[in-house]
Amino acid sequence: MFSHVDHIGIAVADLAAAKALYGDTFGMPLVHQETLTDFGVRIALFDIGSSHIELLSPLDNDTLVSRFFDKQGPGLHHVAYRVPDVEKTLDQLRGSGIKLIDDHPRRGIRGSRVAFLHPKAVGGVLTEIVEYPESLQSDSNIT
Amino acid sequence: MFSHVDHIGIAVADLAAAKALYGDTFGMPLVHQETLTDFGVRIALFDIGSSHIELLSPLDNDTLVSRFFDKQGPGLHHVAYRVPDVEKTLDQLRGSGIKLIDDHPRRGIRGSRVAFLHPKAVGGVLTEIVEYPESLQSDSNIT
Repeated sequence: MFSHVDHIGIAVADLAAAKALYGDTFGMPLVHQETLTDFGVRIALFDIGSSHIELLSPLDNDTLVSRFFDKQGPGLHHVAYRVPDVEKTLDQLRGSGIKLIDDHPRRGIRGSRVAFLHPKAVGGVLTEIVEYPESLQSDSNIT
Repeated sequence: MFSHVDHIGIAVADLAAAKALYGDTFGMPLVHQETLTDFGVRIALFDIGSSHIELLSPLDNDTLVSRFFDKQGPGLHHVAYRVPDVEKTLDQLRGSGIKLIDDHPRRGIRGSRVAFLHPKAVGGVLTEIVEYPESLQSDSNIT
């Protein structure tokens, strides 16, 4: 169902400090930055092998990220798996009785189409699926 | 410093149910199971691309996993990065002023050598580094 881990989402309190840690200390290349107003987050994306670390900095106080942040503080936020067709995977998940947050895909960073599974259906893990646009299909070493 | 995400550690309340979810519903191959008495956990390891999902089921009430479990419940527990030489990476991290849980490597699953960085040094993320034994060097698609 999933080809590989696309990214690990990490909520951060201080985006500049976290970028220095992952970029300078850990040596991961910073490949993209974007603000997603729908999710209320500023994002910094780093390459690590064929996956990414996605740093999430909340913009205001009533979003998926900021609600998590208020509840749990900074730290691991979600895991995202890459899929070839997000709608087809949503159908499969529905068929398996998995509760979803998103019944239909919404826009993620870099023109991707994403959807979230409900953490209650995945043992407390907020889980995302990601379909890349054609322009990014060659971005990672997918087999 | 890190070549790729080796695994994502997930604390689970019901190992059998979690194995059915990741193995059957998500279709990830179960590649290894092991009990690590030092950590007080029963582990089930699934392949996902060149990474793994590591399900952690606590054995008793006074371990790294069970203390996390008591505090936060089931869910994302840690992120592990693969490194060629865990002692060399520990030296580099010490040189960068990163606080460590393990000053020296300890034994992980499948004969690996592992060490944990302190979550306070990594924005609340419990972070592990993993060196594989020679017998597993060809396990993943590492470049």
